[in-house]
Amino acid sequence: MQKFNPVDHPHRRYNPLSNQWVLVSPHRAKRPWQGAQETPSQNSLPSHDPDCFLCPGNIRVTGDKNPDYTSTFVFTNDFAALMTDTPDAPQSDDRLMRCESARGTSRVICFSPDHSKTLPELSIDALIGVICAWQEQTAELGQQYPWVQVFENKGAAMGCSNPHPHGQVWANSFLPNEAKREDDLQRRYFKQNGSPMLVDYTQRELRDGARCVIETEHWLAVVPWWAAWPFETLLLPKTAVKRLVDLTSAQRDDLALALKKLTSRYDNLFKCSFPYSMGWHGAPFNGEENQHWQLHAHFYPPLLRSASVRKFMVGYEMLAETQRDLTAEQAAERLRAVSDVHFRESGA
Amino acid sequence: MQKFNPVDHPHRRYNPLSNQWVLVSPHRAKRPWQGAQETPSQNSLPSHDPDCFLCPGNIRVTGDKNPDYTSTFVFTNDFAALMTDTPDAPQSDDRLMRCESARGTSRVICFSPDHSKTLPELSIDALIGVICAWQEQTAELGQQYPWVQVFENKGAAMGCSNPHPHGQVWANSFLPNEAKREDDLQRRYFKQNGSPMLVDYTQRELRDGARCVIETEHWLAVVPWWAAWPFETLLLPKTAVKRLVDLTSAQRDDLALALKKLTSRYDNLFKCSFPYSMGWHGAPFNGEENQHWQLHAHFYPPLLRSASVRKFMVGYEMLAETQRDLTAEQAAERLRAVSDVHFRESGA
Ligand SMILES: O=P(O)(O)O[C@H]1O[C@H](CO)[C@@H](O)[C@H](O)[C@H]1O
Ligand SMILES: O=P(O)(O)O[C@H]1O[C@H](CO)[C@@H](O)[C@H](O)[C@H]1O
Repeated sequence: MQKFNPVDHPHRRYNPLSNQWVLVSPHRAKRPWQGAQETPSQNSLPSHDPDCFLCPGNIRVTGDKNPDYTSTFVFTNDFAALMTDTPDAPQSDDRLMRCESARGTSRVICFSPDHSKTLPELSIDALIGVICAWQEQTAELGQQYPWVQVFENKGAAMGCSNPHPHGQVWANSFLPNEAKREDDLQRRYFKQNGSPMLVDYTQRELRDGARCVIETEHWLAVVPWWAAWPFETLLLPKTAVKRLVDLTSAQRDDLALALKKLTSRYDNLFKCSFPYSMGWHGAPFNGEENQHWQLHAHFYPPLLRSASVRKFMVGYEMLAETQRDLTAEQAAERLRAVSDVHFRESGA
Repeated sequence: MQKFNPVDHPHRRYNPLSNQWVLVSPHRAKRPWQGAQETPSQNSLPSHDPDCFLCPGNIRVTGDKNPDYTSTFVFTNDFAALMTDTPDAPQSDDRLMRCESARGTSRVICFSPDHSKTLPELSIDALIGVICAWQEQTAELGQQYPWVQVFENKGAAMGCSNPHPHGQVWANSFLPNEAKREDDLQRRYFKQNGSPMLVDYTQRELRDGARCVIETEHWLAVVPWWAAWPFETLLLPKTAVKRLVDLTSAQRDDLALALKKLTSRYDNLFKCSFPYSMGWHGAPFNGEENQHWQLHAHFYPPLLRSASVRKFMVGYEMLAETQRDLTAEQAAERLRAVSDVHFRESGA
């Protein structure tokens, strides 16, 4: 009988951070595609767009005027999904229809005054400014809320309604599903093994190398063993760090480099501005010691085969299990094969 | 102080079938939209398209010729995500990088020879034929596999690469994530309450009415209390039924009517062919008694505000928690407000 070979045979991989499996179908990327095509974003946006809600000096929907900012700029979302002052809902122990009130806030973080840029096209100094904004927001909102979700939706394919470089921060009076799950699973691992799951995992990936995409002095980006999206990555500090606000200045500055290299490889893969959702997970602000927590960023990019053909997480994926069309190792190899210098900066 | 009111205040609702929460932001649907627009499918497709892989008599990618079928037609997917004969992977107890082999098959079910039709536009008799095909596939594959996932991806927005009316069935040698989760949670509820969760739930919704969309003699469709997608529905038999293959012929024939009405309301909402992923969950074929299981279908449609503006489950949703922009009751009310006769059949 034939021997099992993960490069040829469909298999499932386990994600210890979500307690979910992923179905891996290594050869499926070969099937022909007649379905929806994404529209890759244009290359040439102006540095300032008079109709953009986020450009310096412009007027927003609410009538507020943006300042003439020169680095980052943070404001409260004009259509926030959360409110700071929701009254408490009555306690409910209904087994079938349970509800609880939710408080929080959501803010927009403009990464640069330049409408035409994206993260990989910012200078290292400007990227350090973005990281500082993430840290400041986390520190401030963490004083009031147990969970502060920093994220970026990039590209129309990821529901981003404005190409101006920006991300968001949503603070929550509760631990949202994903945070709760990672908290539980990292705690369990720590109890069983005496070390944080993702600190151990980083060591394993550094030794193995097959899934590594970017390595800098203090950071490692890998296509995780259990990746769901075709070119998903996990960005990890090489030593134990609980939160963005705990980074040393050396780790912070080096993160700017790691971000620049990783997002440049993404853009270089299909020679386009690579859409993704990315965001940070760090220890909750719940007054606990949180030894089990390791800071990390998830990058979830949807593209599968080209600038215009994405992976759809639909039918089988929604109803049964996430499924992917190439292995994590194949994806990492392809990302390593392209330059870590952005195609628009390489002068080529 | 103001009293909590779920129509005005952001809140979280609990999904007892997935053990996950959903963040509900009732007033967010008002924000302006400058992002991606979906392309609604054209109204006028030919009844037979010579370039379609699924039309009767045509040649597929593999060179196989489709028969001149007149009702439904089932064949094995030419680019299946699963294989029937994957060798076993070595047992692994690796805490961080675990893998297991996966066997199965995936088949395509053409719903009709007519390229131009969709489910709501089929006759009741033709819909009964589709249900019979679902039952036959489930019965046959259930003899060999513990899980048989019947589903349909409809519309380019849901990754469907061909408008010819068709669904799929994927059989698995394992219980996929969603199946395992529903199995565990329904079992736990049954142990605690002595009755199946979704049988109790159906009674509650029938009495309440606020979330009901379609009621026929034997079936109920509701926007579930915990709906994630804007117009998500759950389709339930009114009495205890474990699997599609256990339906009486009266329940089966009445299901055709319920499907026709529900999908017609969907199309009527934004006067377009409403995209969705839908699929059936029933008791696994694992030799157990499965008293806790109740058959049901999930409909996950992405549209939010019009034929061209969808909900994106991105950044916050992927990293933290599913978020919706209107309440389940508001969504049900809007679906009830449109006719259950399809706009192309109403003669209006
Ligand atoms: O098999 P299809 O319809 O070509 O493909 C579609 O459905 C599959 C099952 O949900 C998904 O894995 C694919 O991403 C999607 O494009
Ligand atoms: O706030 P934005 O960027 O307008 O909206 C986008 O991100 C949000 C947070 O992930 C999502 O809820 C929206 O569906 C998406 O379109």
